[in-house]
Amino acid sequence: MDQSNGKLESTTRNAIRCKAAICRIAGEPLIIEEIEVDPPQAWEVRIKILCTSLCHSDVTFWKLNANNMISNDMPRDGTSRFRDMKGEAVHHFFGVSSFAQYTVVDVAQVVKISPDLPLDKACLLSCGVSTGVGAAWKVAEVEEGSTVAIFGLGSVGLAVAEGAKLRGASKIIGVDLNPKKFDIAKKFGVTDFVNPATTGGKPVIKGLTDGGADYCFECIGLASLMQDAFSSCREGWGQTVILGVELHGTPLSVNCYEIMRGKIITGSMFGGVKPKTDIPFFARKYLDKELNLDGFITHKLSFKDINKAFDLLLEGNSLRCIIWMDDH
Amino acid sequence: MDQSNGKLESTTRNAIRCKAAICRIAGEPLIIEEIEVDPPQAWEVRIKILCTSLCHSDVTFWKLNANNMISNDMPRDGTSRFRDMKGEAVHHFFGVSSFAQYTVVDVAQVVKISPDLPLDKACLLSCGVSTGVGAAWKVAEVEEGSTVAIFGLGSVGLAVAEGAKLRGASKIIGVDLNPKKFDIAKKFGVTDFVNPATTGGKPVIKGLTDGGADYCFECIGLASLMQDAFSSCREGWGQTVILGVELHGTPLSVNCYEIMRGKIITGSMFGGVKPKTDIPFFARKYLDKELNLDGFITHKLSFKDINKAFDLLLEGNSLRCIIWMDDH
Repeated sequence: MDQSNGKLESTTRNAIRCKAAICRIAGEPLIIEEIEVDPPQAWEVRIKILCTSLCHSDVTFWKLNANNMISNDMPRDGTSRFRDMKGEAVHHFFGVSSFAQYTVVDVAQVVKISPDLPLDKACLLSCGVSTGVGAAWKVAEVEEGSTVAIFGLGSVGLAVAEGAKLRGASKIIGVDLNPKKFDIAKKFGVTDFVNPATTGGKPVIKGLTDGGADYCFECIGLASLMQDAFSSCREGWGQTVILGVELHGTPLSVNCYEIMRGKIITGSMFGGVKPKTDIPFFARKYLDKELNLDGFITHKLSFKDINKAFDLLLEGNSLRCIIWMDDH
Repeated sequence: MDQSNGKLESTTRNAIRCKAAICRIAGEPLIIEEIEVDPPQAWEVRIKILCTSLCHSDVTFWKLNANNMISNDMPRDGTSRFRDMKGEAVHHFFGVSSFAQYTVVDVAQVVKISPDLPLDKACLLSCGVSTGVGAAWKVAEVEEGSTVAIFGLGSVGLAVAEGAKLRGASKIIGVDLNPKKFDIAKKFGVTDFVNPATTGGKPVIKGLTDGGADYCFECIGLASLMQDAFSSCREGWGQTVILGVELHGTPLSVNCYEIMRGKIITGSMFGGVKPKTDIPFFARKYLDKELNLDGFITHKLSFKDINKAFDLLLEGNSLRCIIWMDDH
């Protein structure tokens, strides 16, 4: 909080000039520009960003030509704390805006965690990893000995596996079209692997789980895959948890009778995580060596190379890439 | 258990001749015939039926020409304990077969309740009433102060209202095309009434609940009504509970994005009730004057008039009709 370099006095009430990676045109490389970050107003905190990471949500909204959707200015008065060198306001993003060396956020969006947690691990807990772990832990409340199927083994899917493993699932089935994912997935607790390209449409998961998985997680965002997940879960109580963002507008169509007989469909926005209490809890699980965060970090980059992080994620070559906000 | 008239010795090991109402042709009046009820085998109990009631499930399966679906013979060996006067086996129904003066059931399907509970109240707890109360209590776990919308105000819907009231819901909205239902529904805790025929398709429930009900219950069995229920529940956490049996095969089609953002769809088979523990619990709630069962009893008939009970239910003129198995 503006306490870097012992300059507390000089910056508290003034704008700070620093660098930010700005999306000027949807889907085009971010541009690193000088900006001014205003001091926090009531119920706000100005934060120095030391490192951050890139999530699929960033990529999803970066591609969308939907300026209005993402212009989350400060929530209490709708204005921005960012200005470019022409004096024009720069939009906040999702109440966070961590692709800048300084940001201003609402107090509702700040969480105190143990200073023992390394920063490059801490920054994983604010998005996809917590979404996945939370979906297994908080939304599904996976039970000891239960069976789990995960559709899509990106970072969110692997985090679901991590959460399911922590909760004591006896079998964790990973479903992905990319067979290379299995070796990675094993490290996160995935015990069995299904490649739908090789199964000829057979209901493999029902066979692997003696009738259907207790919990199925859809981590891609395809209505057809959600239907597969629903079909793969156990009659009577099987729960399908939707984490993927379906952007094509395709509806999810399911058999009413199967629902009536006890199947459950539920969504997972940020994995049901209540950040103020759950993020410190996950941090503690990491420090106690129960939660694997290191395995998610596949790349590290300097802030000036932030667009490479987008390329790595789009190419499917990274799980999480840590972006260090050096250069100041 | 064969202890009537002090004839324990003479009947325990022998078949008992008595009357049963048998469905010989789907959808046609039941025929009261003499049958023989065999003694119970291992893990079975022979029971003298003193009174019973009629549920929509009875009507649903009575209409279906689906003999195989409903021929639940004894679960452990697949045979029947009923024989007609020609010596032909008569099928059991749903593991209960209470339209006979004696029946045989598996021990798994017998529940011990307080002898203080009057029999005509006890027989309501084995089907629709428990389904509705259970859906609110056990499936949705309706919370104090929450808002509830119930689609369809038959006995099951009214039982949902009763359960929601017991759980402390602050607003219980009843939705039905029949405006006569409102006066009845008030007695079960319904506080507001919506007649879809008069609202011109407007999302009335969102208005009545400041954005959507916390819990919506579909108690009819129409996919379109399930969709209305889903639309009427609150973004972020609203739960739609499906109790109605959809027999047309129409799928339930919902917006993936609304699910992902936290809406829940779940089914309710017998209201999530575990009979051995939950039926005695509901019985206690009645004895403590917390659960209203008397209000469900609108008609009483003798066994010989059992087909009138079907007519009353089909005409929408009864909630629950108690059928007394006199005449022996």
